[in-house]
Amino acid sequence: MRTLKLTLAYDGTDFAGWQIQLGRPTVQQTLETALEKITGQHVSVMASGRTDAGVHALGQVVGFRIESRLSPEDFRRALNANLPPSMAVLDAVEAPDGFHPTRHALRKRYRYVIHDGPIRDVFRRRYCWHFTYGTLDAAAMQRAASPLAGTHDFSSFETSGAPRKTSVRTVYAIEVERGRAGEANLVTVEIEANGFLYNMVRAIVGTLVEVGWGARPEAWPAEVLAAQNRRAAGRTAPPQGLFLVKVDYPTPEPAVCESPTSSRD
Amino acid sequence: MRTLKLTLAYDGTDFAGWQIQLGRPTVQQTLETALEKITGQHVSVMASGRTDAGVHALGQVVGFRIESRLSPEDFRRALNANLPPSMAVLDAVEAPDGFHPTRHALRKRYRYVIHDGPIRDVFRRRYCWHFTYGTLDAAAMQRAASPLAGTHDFSSFETSGAPRKTSVRTVYAIEVERGRAGEANLVTVEIEANGFLYNMVRAIVGTLVEVGWGARPEAWPAEVLAAQNRRAAGRTAPPQGLFLVKVDYPTPEPAVCESPTSSRD
Repeated sequence: MRTLKLTLAYDGTDFAGWQIQLGRPTVQQTLETALEKITGQHVSVMASGRTDAGVHALGQVVGFRIESRLSPEDFRRALNANLPPSMAVLDAVEAPDGFHPTRHALRKRYRYVIHDGPIRDVFRRRYCWHFTYGTLDAAAMQRAASPLAGTHDFSSFETSGAPRKTSVRTVYAIEVERGRAGEANLVTVEIEANGFLYNMVRAIVGTLVEVGWGARPEAWPAEVLAAQNRRAAGRTAPPQGLFLVKVDYPTPEPAVCESPTSSRD
Repeated sequence: MRTLKLTLAYDGTDFAGWQIQLGRPTVQQTLETALEKITGQHVSVMASGRTDAGVHALGQVVGFRIESRLSPEDFRRALNANLPPSMAVLDAVEAPDGFHPTRHALRKRYRYVIHDGPIRDVFRRRYCWHFTYGTLDAAAMQRAASPLAGTHDFSSFETSGAPRKTSVRTVYAIEVERGRAGEANLVTVEIEANGFLYNMVRAIVGTLVEVGWGARPEAWPAEVLAAQNRRAAGRTAPPQGLFLVKVDYPTPEPAVCESPTSSRD
């Protein structure tokens, strides 16, 4: 048995999220169907975390164990030929035995994209939240967001119902930016953390926009955090603006130690 | 009766092109249905030109005559509230009586977007041609394209079947660029002309990519032009990479001449 690690991009619009469910296509089920077509085996795949219906991935990480002589590169090519156009395998590598994409994840980064122009962008409608209440002050949102960085109990920004041991997480970075890719009407919020509670990014974004359009003061998100109560926060932002950007894992120990003298560096 | 001029953006993916046809949704029909909902009248709309199935518009221009007391801005808002998310009215203005969006168009600009990265971009799949034969040399494509600028008979780049008096057109600009919007895998071809033959941009792009990936020499597109024979050219590039960017009209004569002394400039 070998363990493979895939980096996967998908447009979440037409999927009912990651996890297999009856009656609606999911990312997991579509990937398992393609693997079965290629190998003739039913393979169970596991992701770094589940994404909800409508949420996208630029770099979801998936692991599975399989009996096969195909190389990782063969898997990448064969999967891309058998997956729908809304999914693509960006990378495939051999992973150490026992690799667990959920438990071993060290950090994740999410991006949330908001369009605050007066008229909808027909080409981005699946990939952003069209915010129509007013123009957002991205600098005020950044100042309001900064107190969320660090190690805190984020239960104010959690939709209940998902199992977890603790609601304490460490946010390494929270960055609000206007004008990404030269688009003046786009405001992006990127958050990197050691883990995320259920709907945490969408609840933080729904809170920050209240500051952004002037409905709440800049100090409010810090007060929401301190309240440790979901009802204190803003509404959950809609799913189509959310992208899982990347997942970091520990650098694997090299299987064979090279002699220091063989190093070219 | 008043005449209104709309600037319209649409994602062509789910439309069977501009023109009304039975059984499949078209841009024209969707716009006329929204106008009827707003005004209670059946209104016939006319565009600067028909776009094919799958072709997009950033700035299609549409005109129609109507009996209504709504302001142009009222029309813009009401239409955007009644159109599907794949269409948006960017601008609405009063036009002079007799305005004809097809006949009065002076210039049009089209953009064609090619993605030549090895792995498809799941978020751009509706909005580009994923070219997988090789990496394109955009500088060579630009050199090969330059002889097409000017006034020529473009019948080598025309799909037959559309009525026109002449196949002579004037190309004011033809620009090949890599890296638009910071995306290293995107190559765009923009063409501005006083008019376009049927499938002209897609035939030119299908010819230029042959140079871009090294299958033909840089001099070839000029030879194709001189041949005045469609069979001399490359294949027609697929529709989903094509965008109608803008349409220019003569600046209307001001209705009232201002005194020169009132100018602030």
